[in-house]
Amino acid sequence: MTASWQSLATQKREAILAAIPSEWRIPHPPSVEEQVDVTEYIKQFLSQEELEVTESSADQIAVKTTTGQWSAEKVTRAFCHRASLAHQLLHCLHEIFFDAAIEDAKRLDAHYAQHKSPIGPLHGVPVSLKDQFHVKGVETSMGYVGWIGTFEGKKGTGKEKVFESEMVRELRNAGAVLYCKTSVPHTLMTGETVNNIIGYTLNPKNRHLTSGGSSGGEGALIGIRGSPLGFGTDIGGSIRIPAAFNGLYGLRPSTGRLPYEGMANSMDGQNSILSVVGPLAKSAASLRLATKALLLQKPWLHDPLVHEVPWREDQHEEMLRLTTSDEKLCFGLIATDGIVNPTPPVRRATNLVAEALRSAGHTVIPWNSPSHKPILDTGFKSWVFDGGKDVCSAFALSGEPMADQVSFYSSDLKEATGSEIAATNVELRRLKKEYMDFWNSTVDATGTGRPVDAVICPLAPWPAAREGKYKYYGYSTWVNALDYTSVVVPVTNVDKSVDVKEEGYTPIDEADKGVQDDYDPEIYDGAHVSVQIVGRKLQEEKMLAVAEYVGGLIGK
Amino acid sequence: MTASWQSLATQKREAILAAIPSEWRIPHPPSVEEQVDVTEYIKQFLSQEELEVTESSADQIAVKTTTGQWSAEKVTRAFCHRASLAHQLLHCLHEIFFDAAIEDAKRLDAHYAQHKSPIGPLHGVPVSLKDQFHVKGVETSMGYVGWIGTFEGKKGTGKEKVFESEMVRELRNAGAVLYCKTSVPHTLMTGETVNNIIGYTLNPKNRHLTSGGSSGGEGALIGIRGSPLGFGTDIGGSIRIPAAFNGLYGLRPSTGRLPYEGMANSMDGQNSILSVVGPLAKSAASLRLATKALLLQKPWLHDPLVHEVPWREDQHEEMLRLTTSDEKLCFGLIATDGIVNPTPPVRRATNLVAEALRSAGHTVIPWNSPSHKPILDTGFKSWVFDGGKDVCSAFALSGEPMADQVSFYSSDLKEATGSEIAATNVELRRLKKEYMDFWNSTVDATGTGRPVDAVICPLAPWPAAREGKYKYYGYSTWVNALDYTSVVVPVTNVDKSVDVKEEGYTPIDEADKGVQDDYDPEIYDGAHVSVQIVGRKLQEEKMLAVAEYVGGLIGK
Repeated sequence: MTASWQSLATQKREAILAAIPSEWRIPHPPSVEEQVDVTEYIKQFLSQEELEVTESSADQIAVKTTTGQWSAEKVTRAFCHRASLAHQLLHCLHEIFFDAAIEDAKRLDAHYAQHKSPIGPLHGVPVSLKDQFHVKGVETSMGYVGWIGTFEGKKGTGKEKVFESEMVRELRNAGAVLYCKTSVPHTLMTGETVNNIIGYTLNPKNRHLTSGGSSGGEGALIGIRGSPLGFGTDIGGSIRIPAAFNGLYGLRPSTGRLPYEGMANSMDGQNSILSVVGPLAKSAASLRLATKALLLQKPWLHDPLVHEVPWREDQHEEMLRLTTSDEKLCFGLIATDGIVNPTPPVRRATNLVAEALRSAGHTVIPWNSPSHKPILDTGFKSWVFDGGKDVCSAFALSGEPMADQVSFYSSDLKEATGSEIAATNVELRRLKKEYMDFWNSTVDATGTGRPVDAVICPLAPWPAAREGKYKYYGYSTWVNALDYTSVVVPVTNVDKSVDVKEEGYTPIDEADKGVQDDYDPEIYDGAHVSVQIVGRKLQEEKMLAVAEYVGGLIGK
Repeated sequence: MTASWQSLATQKREAILAAIPSEWRIPHPPSVEEQVDVTEYIKQFLSQEELEVTESSADQIAVKTTTGQWSAEKVTRAFCHRASLAHQLLHCLHEIFFDAAIEDAKRLDAHYAQHKSPIGPLHGVPVSLKDQFHVKGVETSMGYVGWIGTFEGKKGTGKEKVFESEMVRELRNAGAVLYCKTSVPHTLMTGETVNNIIGYTLNPKNRHLTSGGSSGGEGALIGIRGSPLGFGTDIGGSIRIPAAFNGLYGLRPSTGRLPYEGMANSMDGQNSILSVVGPLAKSAASLRLATKALLLQKPWLHDPLVHEVPWREDQHEEMLRLTTSDEKLCFGLIATDGIVNPTPPVRRATNLVAEALRSAGHTVIPWNSPSHKPILDTGFKSWVFDGGKDVCSAFALSGEPMADQVSFYSSDLKEATGSEIAATNVELRRLKKEYMDFWNSTVDATGTGRPVDAVICPLAPWPAAREGKYKYYGYSTWVNALDYTSVVVPVTNVDKSVDVKEEGYTPIDEADKGVQDDYDPEIYDGAHVSVQIVGRKLQEEKMLAVAEYVGGLIGK
């Protein structure tokens, strides 16, 4: 008789905990009610040195570790410790491999001692990975009980715990230290992180709320500074949602920029809207460091889906120059997409950014684009082209139930046909062309001689969703459907005395009413509030420059 | 009662002929037997000045027309005349719009007279277009009787004869003069050009043979110098086949380099192996001129499928430098793909190129790549994802029969499901990755410190196919399946006294036997023989440099 999914899940959950050294255990972790915000709480368990290291951003760490000021081992141990604490408070880890990390760190230190030079720009920087990356010596469950002890659900492939994803190889080449893999919702297709192994991943700033998803473990872990830099994936917002909900910067690059090769995925081979991989961190400079480091590895020679587009420093610098020169920038502003309105704190954050830019001399104009409604309707189709076959077969491996958050896969879905898929692709291309033509047309309204440089847009209607209440993806998903570049920028925190519910609010419709009703200032108090900066396809250099600039302006 | 497809086809065929001015008619066009090779025959109908203009390559013409030495009108009239003659001998035109062309040419001349400068790098260069491009004032039948009088089979769209494809706009911006659209096989999915409107397009060098397909009208027209530069499309070889069969250079760029936006197509929305658009011409320099001119128009701002990859002059120059420096290049040689062997003249052409490169000091090594068999088997699946629905519905519009060459669409095909398509995409990606890793591994064998710079490969087993005998697409299609860059280079002509059938040849299998049996030196005598130069994804600059260099070496 095979083990029940419950016992397999329990075993795995306990094995994760057991990988945390006993001296790093929290004797009596507080309940959510006892400690809603654990971002300060966690510090009591850390030494001064550990705090100094872990409160630093990845770019700041790299300055120290690539010049021999901090050893890779010291930095790695500090983050292993903090990540261990984080998991006990938030349930954010799927895999822990601290011993291998410390061995790697020692090798890096030995290299530095011998050569007096780093092996790459990420020398000694700990990097956490969403549990889609394959790392040798480590399992990939992707939140499925049925994947435990297998390679992507299959046994005896010879790849189990041996195969590594392409980006893992590149990160190692760049000097990164890999030490843990982070939680995801099973299926990857929700903005909350929940599965039958680790349960529900909490938001460290406000444990009433989700850490986001599907890269929710990354969001929680980096949010509480258990990692300085991590990688997630994004097919409908899954990098940006956790970034936004945890006060982080997160880059959703366009398709074909960073290497997804050799990663586990849901509905692999769905080719209409591709999931992309990208970094999350507490500073825009960290995202830039990570993106440049990877592009230096020429991923286009190792991943057939990556285009040969090296890091374009000239584009980055040109955009930075425009922020300070007399020429200035022009931004489009999406205050609402007209389908679901942002809740009060998100509205305030969006306005804060717009006002800061205006004060700095830039122009901010309304973004009167084509409606996002058909873009979303068409885009969502691609998520169920296989009628749910892929995810249902993964659940069937163990017999585990699917979470309510992804229960749309259990309903009566029909597989799409070749001609239906083709028609969706044609429609997506038409919508992209229409939006592109609109963007070009803004040249007449900017006063800069250029079309709008970037668009300011909410990333979700709320600062973060409450458990089971992630009901609207439109603010993140339009970016995926159009394959645009987007960087999340943290802006402020909910202040229940300021971000009150709007009296006499007239909802657009029932969907909007549901979202507005779920916003409760008492519950949301203190939560992070963010916006995204959206650019055209493959504009990573420019949008990282704008994000860094905007972040600097609003002082986060 | 609606008109029969026969009468509609006849009307259209006669309307094409009627658009040719009476003074340009050939009173008694010779039969194929009377005049197998018409490339010299045609010259008797042209003036010395017309001959001088039309025997020039596009890059040579551009030198004259962008400096005011030749008027756009004179050049345009000469090509209109020669194209008219070509059509009467080869059946290569679907649309003739000489009057609009001459008006455009006059406007260009007026611009030059006023400003003493050209409007763009293609100022005054006539450009022919495969009948997938939409041009205002002109129909697009794509060889379907049912498309006559419609916009892609639909009536009353408001786009009929008004809408223009994106590349048409860009070509006009660059100064090109558009004057005709060229024949295609209905469905576009064969290497011969045949449809119920114009019949069968013949090869001007040897009218026993096909001009190729699906850009067969382009191949025939440019082959007989009725156009100096044309654009075709390629999903399985459709640019390179007509280029190779007509002694031309032809570029198959990688997906996302040149703008396909707004063109008619078959099975539009099939997203696994995309058709790409690219130039054909009698010189590599002409291809370079056209590609650079288009990239100067920043097509990535107007076509959502184009990546922002400007023309990289540094890559082009570096490759040219390597051809002449002491460092030299290393080529991989595909003498046979092991599935179907090349016939004697193609074998000779491939060896000629390899020997010329060796004599020039370069290294040529066998290309022991992964087998092309699974690449082809997987790639071909994408052509019938819709079970033939799209093309069958186009035939059904008029009730016309499909040609034998595409009769695989009339057999009992099943539409693929979402998960079958996804599985094909995963397999294609795996095969690309495997090939990519192999290519990287050649660094150990080249002696240059680089992996192989380019691969020399036949484009088809024969110099050209005989009517109804295009049986094997493997030599062209592996390039599409892997999304590589390829440039066809003309090498030699069949010499029946040299290219004799191999005595005692042992065929690989029945398929190979069929191909070898169809080769007859008597029939093929004089036909063009070509090879292709294949590079990795998005290596247009480098492969155009290599093609130009190889073309120079072998003296064609």
